[in-house]
Amino acid sequence: MFLAVDAGGTSTRAVVLDASGRVFGYGRAGGGNPTSAGVTEAVTAIGVAAGQAVSPVGHPRDRESVAVVAMAGEQGVAFVEQLTVRLAGLGFGRVTRQPDLLGVFHSGTPASQGYAMIAGTGTVAARVRDGRLERVVGGRGWLLGDAGSGFWIGHRVARAVVEALDGQGPATALTELVLSSLAIEAELSSPGGRIEAIRRMVSTVYARRPVQLSELAPLAFAAYDDPVARGILTAAAGALAELVATTRADDLAGPLVVGGSVMVNGVLAAPPELRQIALPNPAEVIPVSDGVVGAAVLALRAAGLTVDAALFHTLQSGVANSRQRVVGFAG
Amino acid sequence: MFLAVDAGGTSTRAVVLDASGRVFGYGRAGGGNPTSAGVTEAVTAIGVAAGQAVSPVGHPRDRESVAVVAMAGEQGVAFVEQLTVRLAGLGFGRVTRQPDLLGVFHSGTPASQGYAMIAGTGTVAARVRDGRLERVVGGRGWLLGDAGSGFWIGHRVARAVVEALDGQGPATALTELVLSSLAIEAELSSPGGRIEAIRRMVSTVYARRPVQLSELAPLAFAAYDDPVARGILTAAAGALAELVATTRADDLAGPLVVGGSVMVNGVLAAPPELRQIALPNPAEVIPVSDGVVGAAVLALRAAGLTVDAALFHTLQSGVANSRQRVVGFAG
Repeated sequence: MFLAVDAGGTSTRAVVLDASGRVFGYGRAGGGNPTSAGVTEAVTAIGVAAGQAVSPVGHPRDRESVAVVAMAGEQGVAFVEQLTVRLAGLGFGRVTRQPDLLGVFHSGTPASQGYAMIAGTGTVAARVRDGRLERVVGGRGWLLGDAGSGFWIGHRVARAVVEALDGQGPATALTELVLSSLAIEAELSSPGGRIEAIRRMVSTVYARRPVQLSELAPLAFAAYDDPVARGILTAAAGALAELVATTRADDLAGPLVVGGSVMVNGVLAAPPELRQIALPNPAEVIPVSDGVVGAAVLALRAAGLTVDAALFHTLQSGVANSRQRVVGFAG
Repeated sequence: MFLAVDAGGTSTRAVVLDASGRVFGYGRAGGGNPTSAGVTEAVTAIGVAAGQAVSPVGHPRDRESVAVVAMAGEQGVAFVEQLTVRLAGLGFGRVTRQPDLLGVFHSGTPASQGYAMIAGTGTVAARVRDGRLERVVGGRGWLLGDAGSGFWIGHRVARAVVEALDGQGPATALTELVLSSLAIEAELSSPGGRIEAIRRMVSTVYARRPVQLSELAPLAFAAYDDPVARGILTAAAGALAELVATTRADDLAGPLVVGGSVMVNGVLAAPPELRQIALPNPAEVIPVSDGVVGAAVLALRAAGLTVDAALFHTLQSGVANSRQRVVGFAG
């Protein structure tokens, strides 16, 4: 028995599988990243998702059973210790952590080389060679990096609305969408009403964490016909294309696996011209909804097993089926 | 006797003068804005500066003596009450507050119409008609506005350095300046050393308040010959020019008075091409170091006096002389 976990910033997914790639259980819980959720909360989320995944078959009897947890960032000693204890309690005595980028990459392909990009609240991309991350670019957070990310888009959306209200920038369909999303009622036909709208927007936005501006990013995709929104998205797609380009090596071919809400729900669902900017060679692009299949691939490989194309497809459909049984298609 | 105070985010200046524009004392203290410094600290700073200014002549005997405090933002009831009590204790029973933009404007001109721009940590501009602010643009803080500000420039400087270290952007002379300014020692000749430099930059920057990135803005002016720095400054100057342009009205001519560290120490000290972008018509531009002369103009006008060109120049040179006596030329 193997446990594979994809511990993300907003949700955590886990599956239990055997060496043949058969998936027995699926679990889902809240954010499992200690940096954003806190150590105890992250360990709890991972434990809850893993517990759900293991419940259909019971705890493995072999205390050396392998668990792989795919997650972003560096983790402290306290987190690693608590995680190890928690998963050992479920019967998984050998816990290893792997980068979320490898989880995403192997959720899209059994190949051992290629490229991966995650564009959600933040952005990061990597070149994968021989199953390892050879070069990672981006992922410096909302203040120092993450061009093209959900924060980056949402930040520009908010600024464009303030400028439109202020007369500094062109009118935009984003204004109504943003004010409504922030629950601000305003009389926009008068200068005084617009000044009041700005005042309320400023007090609302500064009262929240800056990174919450990423919640406005979907509005830009919703208003794609608006020139201001389209300008923001075109710039974001250009930044994402640059990010991927920075990871390219001439001697390394392979698919580009992409994940994250901006990429999967935004760019790939957007009109073709935007997809082309962000993904110069769309033929090679494989979108994935998360990294749990990849975590399963990494778990099997950690046990010395070979994951070929047939086993990979068994895994993929097994995860999809058990996920659908447990949480419905959207989960 | 009149008291005039310019209460800024990082320092507060005060002068005591009479109806003829003769300046008797000058005082200086820390940040006097309650939003950034806190109510008690702001009142204390204003009180200390005012106390220094009034000390050469003693407290006025007329309890109806006028004090004008020029400052940014809206102020709460607690601040206004404490300020009134504190200044009444110095003999100034009639305290009024005025926008910092009017203080800056009237520090440069006795005219009752024209334009004012402050570009320091933040940016804001206004059109002045009949001695009042008719239209104010900008000033929405680092997250929602302030294009071209110290924060805006410093933020781009930091991002450009991360991108240069990461291989995402071109090499830049800013890298060495920024790392040195953040006290980060790094071995930049190896990829591992550059990754370590990014890691330390990320942990340093996220440990501080975002707005402190404005401290990196002077480095861009220092590295003006570097194409990356010049690109950032050209974009900033363009944003400042746009800000001023948004306040223009066809029927209102008058000087543009500019203040703030980015404008006065940065743009105006920079090569001519940058000045031309930021200030399309430099003939009309009057730089001022702060708003204390303007606060004095407003104090005399609040008492019903007329401030003509002759009285204005008396005031200007009186403030300059008393400032120099107290804190030296730079203060």
